[in-house]
Amino acid sequence: MSLRLTILGCHSATPRSHGHTSSQYLEVNNEGFLIDCGEGSQAQLRKYKIKFSRIKRIFISHLHGDHFFGLIGLIATFGLLNRKSELHIHGPKGIKKIILMQLKLTGSWVAYPLHFHELEAMESELIFENDKVEVHTIPLSHRIYTNGFLFREKPLPRNLNMSAISKYPEIEICDYQNLKKGRDYKMDDGSIVPNADLTFDPPKILQYAYCSDTAYDEKIIPHIKGVDLLYHESTFLEDNKDLAEITKHATALEAATIASKADVKQLILGHYSSRYKDTTLFQEEAKIIFPNSVLAEAGKEFILNNQN
Amino acid sequence: MSLRLTILGCHSATPRSHGHTSSQYLEVNNEGFLIDCGEGSQAQLRKYKIKFSRIKRIFISHLHGDHFFGLIGLIATFGLLNRKSELHIHGPKGIKKIILMQLKLTGSWVAYPLHFHELEAMESELIFENDKVEVHTIPLSHRIYTNGFLFREKPLPRNLNMSAISKYPEIEICDYQNLKKGRDYKMDDGSIVPNADLTFDPPKILQYAYCSDTAYDEKIIPHIKGVDLLYHESTFLEDNKDLAEITKHATALEAATIASKADVKQLILGHYSSRYKDTTLFQEEAKIIFPNSVLAEAGKEFILNNQN
Repeated sequence: MSLRLTILGCHSATPRSHGHTSSQYLEVNNEGFLIDCGEGSQAQLRKYKIKFSRIKRIFISHLHGDHFFGLIGLIATFGLLNRKSELHIHGPKGIKKIILMQLKLTGSWVAYPLHFHELEAMESELIFENDKVEVHTIPLSHRIYTNGFLFREKPLPRNLNMSAISKYPEIEICDYQNLKKGRDYKMDDGSIVPNADLTFDPPKILQYAYCSDTAYDEKIIPHIKGVDLLYHESTFLEDNKDLAEITKHATALEAATIASKADVKQLILGHYSSRYKDTTLFQEEAKIIFPNSVLAEAGKEFILNNQN
Repeated sequence: MSLRLTILGCHSATPRSHGHTSSQYLEVNNEGFLIDCGEGSQAQLRKYKIKFSRIKRIFISHLHGDHFFGLIGLIATFGLLNRKSELHIHGPKGIKKIILMQLKLTGSWVAYPLHFHELEAMESELIFENDKVEVHTIPLSHRIYTNGFLFREKPLPRNLNMSAISKYPEIEICDYQNLKKGRDYKMDDGSIVPNADLTFDPPKILQYAYCSDTAYDEKIIPHIKGVDLLYHESTFLEDNKDLAEITKHATALEAATIASKADVKQLILGHYSSRYKDTTLFQEEAKIIFPNSVLAEAGKEFILNNQN
């Protein structure tokens, strides 16, 4: 059970030579995802030596330029590099039209299978799952249609307690699958051996929630309750709370309030407005409410392993 | 009379953390132009401290991503920065549709006047002129419709030779305009004083030609004859001449051959393929044919002044 997050960019609005716009690379149990793709993200992927081939799915939160203007370039580059494996794009309705029109007009049609999964639901939905991970949308409150994303590991089977099992000779290998699934064992004499006596808990699942861009909105709390890692935008500090409200962004204090109310384990702050030269101010403000608040910065990694 | 060129990016195909795709900032007599706009160009403009407000016109050579994927981001950023002055985009037919659709779908319509001048002519044409400069297209030979651009200073009026003029008392101030225009002076007795006896040559005009992307094509020579500065793509070295032919790019030796045949004063090489780690090889190859060959690199400036 492992979760590895690399921040590629965490500044708002416009790219700068030392302030890249939103993009993150996430691996959950070795499944590679890209979250948002601001201009210059492909150069950041190269800088941090993330293999393009590991990216199977891209999740785009919303259609503001600082979250997806780098997508067409990345898709075209995959084509130039002769990618063969399929690529899935999950993002708001309209994203398919934007990308396909550019590929067509620029004569750079790609040879690999490119699948779009357009989002328009206003409620949280499961948008991807395999045997390792599931991804749910988190409806956010921004100026345009926006989703955050919750990445949740799939639970592993329970671990067999072989020493306990050996005390019951009638339990056979063919029974193990049921025990791993959590079922109790029924003895030939009709008595029940509770599953908890025969197995250990599997490693606890890990969860990561990405919430950007969004105003302060307590409606997201049930979706992110108890996650191991929460990235919540903090475009402003409290000194610009009015501006945050007008533009439907959050302050660092608001991000911390959400983290606290949702009882998450760690909060990552980001999407900083360029008006603040010193990003440590965001951390100072958030820590008032939520001590385990850390700053996103390009190249920073968050690695979680859970072996119980 | 002055020409100032700043290379923002000069690598082909895909952006890298230390290899930006095509973009150049050019000032001709203080008129600011952007030529091509690969992904990340706006960050490069910031890095080299070029004021966004100085860019009045953007010329796009062709619709391959490494020459224009940064355009939508720059246009949107101008909007976020509350630009008021008009912006003109000159580029191949289709560019207006690509940009407008993205602005519409992303809800980031800009408040400044944005004018498109779409190109589809197959012959060279004058696409912009004011009292300081004129810009002509240079039809290039690439896989899709592509233009280079010739930037030519407008000639200044001839300078009056006041010491010579003073010898002819009947020449009055009201005659000076005609002399500046190069006209001879007709004396009251019908005799002619040649203009060359009464004026000095004005500063020689400066010319810059941008030719990227293109195969080796001698048809461009008449358009770039004698220019002060020629940027000619050299994606490959002669070791990959076959690849250059297939992809309709040029080698460094071919760029130098064009520079030599066109009798230009200086050749700038660029648009390097990422397969070459050592760009000095391009200069070495070009110098065999054309000694005054130099390498483009991000941040490099070329400043020409002509005071005669």
